[in-house]
Amino acid sequence: MKKLVLAYSGGLDTSYCAKYLTEEEGFEVHAVSVNTGGFTGEEIAEIEKKAKILGVTSYTSIDAVQTFYDEVVKYLIYGNVLKNNTYPLSVSAERIVQAIEIIKHAKKIGAKYIAHGSTGAGNDQVRFDMIFQIIAPEIEIITPIRDKKLSRQEEIDYLKNKGINQEWSKAKYSINKGLWGTSVGGDETLTSQLPLPNEAYPSQLTNMGSQKVKLTFKKGELTAIDGKKGKPVENIEKLNNIASSYAIGRDIHVGDTIIGIKGRVGFEAAAPLIIIKAHHTLEKHVLTKWQQHHKEYLANWYGMLLHEGQYLDEAMRNIEAFLIDSQKNVSGDVWVSLHPYRFVIDGIKSEHDLMSAKFGAYGEMNKGWTAEDAKGFIKIMSNSAKIHQAVNKKSYD
Amino acid sequence: MKKLVLAYSGGLDTSYCAKYLTEEEGFEVHAVSVNTGGFTGEEIAEIEKKAKILGVTSYTSIDAVQTFYDEVVKYLIYGNVLKNNTYPLSVSAERIVQAIEIIKHAKKIGAKYIAHGSTGAGNDQVRFDMIFQIIAPEIEIITPIRDKKLSRQEEIDYLKNKGINQEWSKAKYSINKGLWGTSVGGDETLTSQLPLPNEAYPSQLTNMGSQKVKLTFKKGELTAIDGKKGKPVENIEKLNNIASSYAIGRDIHVGDTIIGIKGRVGFEAAAPLIIIKAHHTLEKHVLTKWQQHHKEYLANWYGMLLHEGQYLDEAMRNIEAFLIDSQKNVSGDVWVSLHPYRFVIDGIKSEHDLMSAKFGAYGEMNKGWTAEDAKGFIKIMSNSAKIHQAVNKKSYD
Amino acid sequence: MKKLVLAYSGGLDTSYCAKYLTEEEGFEVHAVSVNTGGFTGEEIAEIEKKAKILGVTSYTSIDAVQTFYDEVVKYLIYGNVLKNNTYPLSVSAERIVQAIEIIKHAKKIGAKYIAHGSTGAGNDQVRFDMIFQIIAPEIEIITPIRDKKLSRQEEIDYLKNKGINQEWSKAKYSINKGLWGTSVGGDETLTSQLPLPNEAYPSQLTNMGSQKVKLTFKKGELTAIDGKKGKPVENIEKLNNIASSYAIGRDIHVGDTIIGIKGRVGFEAAAPLIIIKAHHTLEKHVLTKWQQHHKEYLANWYGMLLHEGQYLDEAMRNIEAFLIDSQKNVSGDVWVSLHPYRFVIDGIKSEHDLMSAKFGAYGEMNKGWTAEDAKGFIKIMSNSAKIHQAVNKKSYD
Amino acid sequence: MKKLVLAYSGGLDTSYCAKYLTEEEGFEVHAVSVNTGGFTGEEIAEIEKKAKILGVTSYTSIDAVQTFYDEVVKYLIYGNVLKNNTYPLSVSAERIVQAIEIIKHAKKIGAKYIAHGSTGAGNDQVRFDMIFQIIAPEIEIITPIRDKKLSRQEEIDYLKNKGINQEWSKAKYSINKGLWGTSVGGDETLTSQLPLPNEAYPSQLTNMGSQKVKLTFKKGELTAIDGKKGKPVENIEKLNNIASSYAIGRDIHVGDTIIGIKGRVGFEAAAPLIIIKAHHTLEKHVLTKWQQHHKEYLANWYGMLLHEGQYLDEAMRNIEAFLIDSQKNVSGDVWVSLHPYRFVIDGIKSEHDLMSAKFGAYGEMNKGWTAEDAKGFIKIMSNSAKIHQAVNKKSYD
Repeated sequence: MKKLVLAYSGGLDTSYCAKYLTEEEGFEVHAVSVNTGGFTGEEIAEIEKKAKILGVTSYTSIDAVQTFYDEVVKYLIYGNVLKNNTYPLSVSAERIVQAIEIIKHAKKIGAKYIAHGSTGAGNDQVRFDMIFQIIAPEIEIITPIRDKKLSRQEEIDYLKNKGINQEWSKAKYSINKGLWGTSVGGDETLTSQLPLPNEAYPSQLTNMGSQKVKLTFKKGELTAIDGKKGKPVENIEKLNNIASSYAIGRDIHVGDTIIGIKGRVGFEAAAPLIIIKAHHTLEKHVLTKWQQHHKEYLANWYGMLLHEGQYLDEAMRNIEAFLIDSQKNVSGDVWVSLHPYRFVIDGIKSEHDLMSAKFGAYGEMNKGWTAEDAKGFIKIMSNSAKIHQAVNKKSYD
Repeated sequence: MKKLVLAYSGGLDTSYCAKYLTEEEGFEVHAVSVNTGGFTGEEIAEIEKKAKILGVTSYTSIDAVQTFYDEVVKYLIYGNVLKNNTYPLSVSAERIVQAIEIIKHAKKIGAKYIAHGSTGAGNDQVRFDMIFQIIAPEIEIITPIRDKKLSRQEEIDYLKNKGINQEWSKAKYSINKGLWGTSVGGDETLTSQLPLPNEAYPSQLTNMGSQKVKLTFKKGELTAIDGKKGKPVENIEKLNNIASSYAIGRDIHVGDTIIGIKGRVGFEAAAPLIIIKAHHTLEKHVLTKWQQHHKEYLANWYGMLLHEGQYLDEAMRNIEAFLIDSQKNVSGDVWVSLHPYRFVIDGIKSEHDLMSAKFGAYGEMNKGWTAEDAKGFIKIMSNSAKIHQAVNKKSYD
Repeated sequence: MKKLVLAYSGGLDTSYCAKYLTEEEGFEVHAVSVNTGGFTGEEIAEIEKKAKILGVTSYTSIDAVQTFYDEVVKYLIYGNVLKNNTYPLSVSAERIVQAIEIIKHAKKIGAKYIAHGSTGAGNDQVRFDMIFQIIAPEIEIITPIRDKKLSRQEEIDYLKNKGINQEWSKAKYSINKGLWGTSVGGDETLTSQLPLPNEAYPSQLTNMGSQKVKLTFKKGELTAIDGKKGKPVENIEKLNNIASSYAIGRDIHVGDTIIGIKGRVGFEAAAPLIIIKAHHTLEKHVLTKWQQHHKEYLANWYGMLLHEGQYLDEAMRNIEAFLIDSQKNVSGDVWVSLHPYRFVIDGIKSEHDLMSAKFGAYGEMNKGWTAEDAKGFIKIMSNSAKIHQAVNKKSYD
Repeated sequence: MKKLVLAYSGGLDTSYCAKYLTEEEGFEVHAVSVNTGGFTGEEIAEIEKKAKILGVTSYTSIDAVQTFYDEVVKYLIYGNVLKNNTYPLSVSAERIVQAIEIIKHAKKIGAKYIAHGSTGAGNDQVRFDMIFQIIAPEIEIITPIRDKKLSRQEEIDYLKNKGINQEWSKAKYSINKGLWGTSVGGDETLTSQLPLPNEAYPSQLTNMGSQKVKLTFKKGELTAIDGKKGKPVENIEKLNNIASSYAIGRDIHVGDTIIGIKGRVGFEAAAPLIIIKAHHTLEKHVLTKWQQHHKEYLANWYGMLLHEGQYLDEAMRNIEAFLIDSQKNVSGDVWVSLHPYRFVIDGIKSEHDLMSAKFGAYGEMNKGWTAEDAKGFIKIMSNSAKIHQAVNKKSYD
């Protein structure tokens, strides 16, 4: 029988795929869901139950949270990556790791087919297909939703006909949750003009006060919160829980999809936004100007290539080598104040801090250099433009 | 007699310069203050009074707000320039225009000397000196504060001796106000760790509610607020008044000074931060991916070179040409919600909006392309990495 | 009848298309060839004769040499564009202009179809199709060679059957000639290892001596050779004639095709390589460091996007605005020595030359600054790394 | 007594320093010359003899050729670094390593002073001073030539008076030789217009024929010539000897000095230019498009910062990490043809070659993708510009 691995989420589209591929196409369907931080144990049990009802041959839940952190999230923090200065790339980043885990599973069980439920109009199909084709070009990709362009109702009707009478309530907002943020799509995000209403966001304000937290970074990784050490993944989850009660981290991202159209999506990403701004602030104290400058250039590209499914381009590995090397001194504490809907970076402390009264305070003279040194510096710095002006005589009268 | 133009602000340092240069060095001192948006009419009258008491030969107030906008601020908006993703370059930008206006005045009145009150440890000396030397290398620059390293008390004592008994109350926070934002320095900003206290910020929260404003941009310039047309400069001031009542726009910037040390400065810049984020959001809808990408590259450089006093480098003119050309379609409305201490961009409307259901909504198939097209696209997009993997055989087991 | 415009070159592939589309598909075929510098008058007459024999309804030769220069070549010179530091983008650049001219022609005569002879494995199909689809999405693109994957012999047999008994001698090397260079493909370029033999290059060494030429640029354009003024297009052709007799300008380009595979192609481009190096040398004298730096960044992108068929991306217009502005002072004379197979840039003369003994010769002190100024400059320049070393204490023992 | 380390070359300037600092300033002078590939054993013996005659307390010759390669040259090859697309940075690169070796020596012998013979108008003073100040801010830098602005004749007269009657023949061209190339300065390079005459170049054409050499790279390093393995340093020297007999590698570099003036210098660098072009060609075959793109960005910066004396900026280490990682697959053979005054890269062979008929030859269809795939690809690629055109309706009539 034709062994097929299905990337299964428990939603309508992949449920349709599970049934359809088994019944109509005669595949032996092995459903796999890869958890990159979005599912609780109960949710996974629920997904498994659904899969079983649909008659899949096997269901496997792969816990890839740590892998997700190690292979992708870590570098997004090192690089302070915010797509278009806004979006922490929550979903883009997950898809890559999910695809790799699924293809590994397919190879392990000797499947010759792999299926996913993406449509032909989004980014995810590109991310999935590219990873699949690159790592395992011998495996055929099957995408019923993309190929058949079914409506939601047609999928529901098909499943009903097959005796699957589940409630496929179309939630008003489609939510995608993971370690590195939650995306929120809805009617409003299909327009350019409307914001998402408050209730669209999964995390609601429950904490009206404010509080301070101390984030400790070691070589760029979040190793402790308020002095309590923990693994970075745990710290991210912990911080997210704290900050979500302040409804921190909401925004809307407008971006260029891989297929060339514009897309708009809401998100909430309390921990990612706080961690990135805290980490970035620490870097401003411990990295030189040119380190920051070139890091930003490369990190922007890292984000763009990741977003566009090019994670396996060898350039990504080279950029990671740069990013790792850049984090040698990115260690220290960052204090953050949390308030309803917003946060403030208060300040940092680091033994690698390059800002120190020892070397001269901004605006105050010190023993490091004299007025004459400063004047000499400025004179020489002016040479190029002074010569240009002498030669080309632009009038400033 | 030796004619000298003094960049005069009314503060202790430049008051000392006025007296000292007149009395001890025998200069004919012509005090000039250049208003880039920080001074009201009464404040200017006050500065003039002070200058006269100090015995300057002439006092001139130059209104350079429009020039400031035309020559610098406009491009900072076009480029969405935030230094280190944070600071709208409020002070850096002003100094350039002030220096050019002062040098023009010096040339007009035939002064052979020019003086300013900067110390030898900051950025402003570089910005002033560079502009002066480049445009008028024949004029000698005089900087008593930098050269003599006087303490505040020594300056006060000197002035008292000379019969100037003004109150030189050292405010707890040094404030620098202009059209494009207000910087705030104090004891806390000399540390890496401490935030500025609430009271350090000039604008305090007076508006507990929230409101929406509609910003209209035309070719990148803010031409109307809530449908009421006005000159960009007026609109910036108006928006700043509205938003400041919400205490919007506070943050702390940590940056690399031109002289190589780190500097930390607080600021409030309600209108600049709102305008830049609104403008940027509009651009995300109307510019192509590569326009945004290269604009960001150039605009970062525009900000860096401006910050470092390199405004007169001819590269700045070339970048401006790019920026102007990029704004052809940056026209439309942006809705912004103002809340205490924060704002949210709600959405945009533009006839140049590239996001439109007409061309396909994200995630939903349409008549623009088929599933087969998408699959072909992805297959070809995978070619490079697929070949790399086939050749170099990295293991994913 | 279905009106169709065929991009016609006179070669086997497009001849097949002409016949096939007329006879089998019932199109009214209007053949068009766009001359971007590769054809003489006689060659065009020859192409027309061929087209008529094939039974096309009309044949039109469009002279686009000046357009090619105005819309593309000019910017390649401004930007010193050499793909991968080697290839002047001869063919890539032509295709864009050819496609635009063809689509204009199709719209003029009201054709609803457009055809070209590209295969499905090259860059040209992308360049043609993209321009066609973007400018005239309502026109259908027909590509028999790509769709039917015919062998050369099958095409010849088909034409013979139809009574077209022309000699379709497959030349050993496929040559593509235009104003901005000639590409040369052959068996060797299908390998990674073999160079093209001497005889593969259209221009052979006929001049064993050597000579000097003076190139005069005005705002970046080549306006005179040896003092004789002429239009840039004429000057390019003239210089190419002179330099080709020295067999100058041969090389092999290895690059990434748009479809993700590597491609290798020989070329000869005497005038392009000389003009670019001469223009670049002039720029080194008249542009500031940052102008050169950012020009190079943008020009690399201009070349990449042009190569990849993205000429119509609006970012290209923004880059052109930068490039135009950067050429304000790029005027002067450049002396070049021509030798067999190579050339040398001897030197330049320009009233905008920023290198002048007036401002100080390299290595020799002058009145512009003192030893103390230099020492102050260096001291301040060292601040950043000095502080970094003091903080992080890397050992140099 | 005041212990001082003098960077000693045996030339007039540093000889003057040796004598002057001993006799007039009472230093205990320890002369050090650092060989980065420019000196033979006899030349070093000669330098030592001169130093002894001048009465220095000690003379030390440090062999830093391997260090020079390991710390700098290797990365210049990895990065294909040619300043302004021309100059392999021969001298800039050496100075850095020389300065570090000298400062190490000074620290080892406990010297509190360090002296060099640079003037106040060149790049070398910046490179030396910066390295010295950053690594050993406690050591005082002494620069008599810069401070006293002596003429050559004054120096000679002083030495004569002290009984040093050496012949200080001013060679017509000042030559600076090292592992990575030889710079040539003379009257002509002080002009913008004149080329260096043939006789100015140290290596003259002695080989009228031509030959092929095979260069073998392993992870970016030159490990064999014509199949004969050797250490990279030896291979560079060997290739340089072969290629210099063809007078290959001459050119003139016009660049921006650190102090803001333009400088022009001739050079010959046979091995560097051949190795860089060979290595670059190999990379075009084995690296992806984005690897090449970002490598070029970073390598340009590596060259610029190295040139400007910023070798110790931590950003340089981060870039090196990227470069090392990028060389994983840069292994293979490159064939080069040498001819009088020029060379040609013939081709390459590598097991990491991404160009292979297996994956489809340029222009020829294969089983990797279909015509439909290509059309789908192009259609989706056109989306962005197609939408832009539909929205903004630029006329192409």
